Amino acid sequence: MQEKPLILVTNDDGITASGLRALSDVVRPMGNVIVIAPDKPQSGTSHAVTMHFPLRLTTIHKEVGFEKYSCNGTPADCIKLAYKVILGRKPDLLVSGINHGSNSSINIIYSGTMAAVFEGAMAGVPSIGFSLLNSSPNADFTASRIYAQQIIRTVLKQKLPKSTCLNVNIPHVPLDEIKGIRICRQSSGTWMEDFDIRKDPKGREYYWMKGTFSQAGEGEDTDEWALEHKYVSVVPANYDFTDYPAIKELKQWDFSS
Amino acid sequence: MQEKPLILVTNDDGITASGLRALSDVVRPMGNVIVIAPDKPQSGTSHAVTMHFPLRLTTIHKEVGFEKYSCNGTPADCIKLAYKVILGRKPDLLVSGINHGSNSSINIIYSGTMAAVFEGAMAGVPSIGFSLLNSSPNADFTASRIYAQQIIRTVLKQKLPKSTCLNVNIPHVPLDEIKGIRICRQSSGTWMEDFDIRKDPKGREYYWMKGTFSQAGEGEDTDEWALEHKYVSVVPANYDFTDYPAIKELKQWDFSS
Repeated sequence: MQEKPLILVTNDDGITASGLRALSDVVRPMGNVIVIAPDKPQSGTSHAVTMHFPLRLTTIHKEVGFEKYSCNGTPADCIKLAYKVILGRKPDLLVSGINHGSNSSINIIYSGTMAAVFEGAMAGVPSIGFSLLNSSPNADFTASRIYAQQIIRTVLKQKLPKSTCLNVNIPHVPLDEIKGIRICRQSSGTWMEDFDIRKDPKGREYYWMKGTFSQAGEGEDTDEWALEHKYVSVVPANYDFTDYPAIKELKQWDFSS
Repeated sequence: MQEKPLILVTNDDGITASGLRALSDVVRPMGNVIVIAPDKPQSGTSHAVTMHFPLRLTTIHKEVGFEKYSCNGTPADCIKLAYKVILGRKPDLLVSGINHGSNSSINIIYSGTMAAVFEGAMAGVPSIGFSLLNSSPNADFTASRIYAQQIIRTVLKQKLPKSTCLNVNIPHVPLDEIKGIRICRQSSGTWMEDFDIRKDPKGREYYWMKGTFSQAGEGEDTDEWALEHKYVSVVPANYDFTDYPAIKELKQWDFSS
């Protein structure tokens, strides 16, 4: 009998998030499941790792085929700890989310959810991040569960290219309005930074980050287009930051003059 | 008379780091310089942004053509705050570093130094990160200063391609041993995660992240090769994570079965 796949589940919204529960529910029938997630919300922590204080692990739940742990670090810390301290090996699949809020477009660079996914890909583990375009703690994950199941099953059957992971975003509409899955590129939308400037009781200024997302409106092959048109967007992502087309141009430059 | 360029300087080692001072010294003759850096070390914070507490700015120094500020946030926070609260516009150049330690290969994904550089690139600002392969607080930046000056001057003259920024690493050898500048791609080396497992006085386990860098040894076009062979490595980098070659493959997948 073939051994069940070992599936690692994480997120950046923290161990109590309902999106994490939804994702665990989806994968439990598919294999042996280990959940490890931050003990508090870690949205926007990107690929931060903890070097200035030691990490702690707390066992939340343990039964045959299903274990849950929390960690006082970031999502990237969770994955590194899981490999080394909990599993003692690499898992067969890593899933992260379901994030409460979008990780499409440039949000991928700020995302703790996707940082965990990149940690998986770096270790050669098939890895997928899921995000729902609704940041409410009580968001409805019905449609997300169904699409997550489809995509995970497909990834377990197919072989993801080496170093490639998936950034999946799900529109916040009822299941019957979703038109299907689209393979996309990352749109080049960015955040227009802004700050709320306030004064504390001593009259000193402090700043709350806010900002509005600015879409580039670049056509039908982007994740933003897919999501606007009620498709689930799947962006194959890679942690190689090299701008290959620029290499040729820079090789013409004379640095000595 | 043409106005001097407005140059923004930052780092992730914090406002007191000698690498930051070295980089400010390099750019001061080239334009009006604003330094904004974290008030404490922020190595390994990657592209984290601060959303759970408000940000503060402290004015450290102000004279015509040269200002210094510290901020209680991450390098990415520093750049966003600088645009909106200090400068009121985008700078003409952004430089980050000189980092005390390598940001070659996969280190780019964990790097606060390079996160600030990506923030620059996203805003259309020519942006360069500099790192010296020595993490000592008292590292010798003599050679780094000279190569930083050459590279910055060249970037100010040439036009960087849209969305492209530079990740520059400098080998830790005497100036006369450096063989020159090489345009490279990011090597695919990764960290092999490991943890020091200790027990606190109450007998509870805690974990210190450590790890060893595993080089892939892939040939002469990578940054790791260049640095080993005493070249300054320049990797043109981009914040588009899309794995373009994988798009075609994934479009063949049947997600419905």
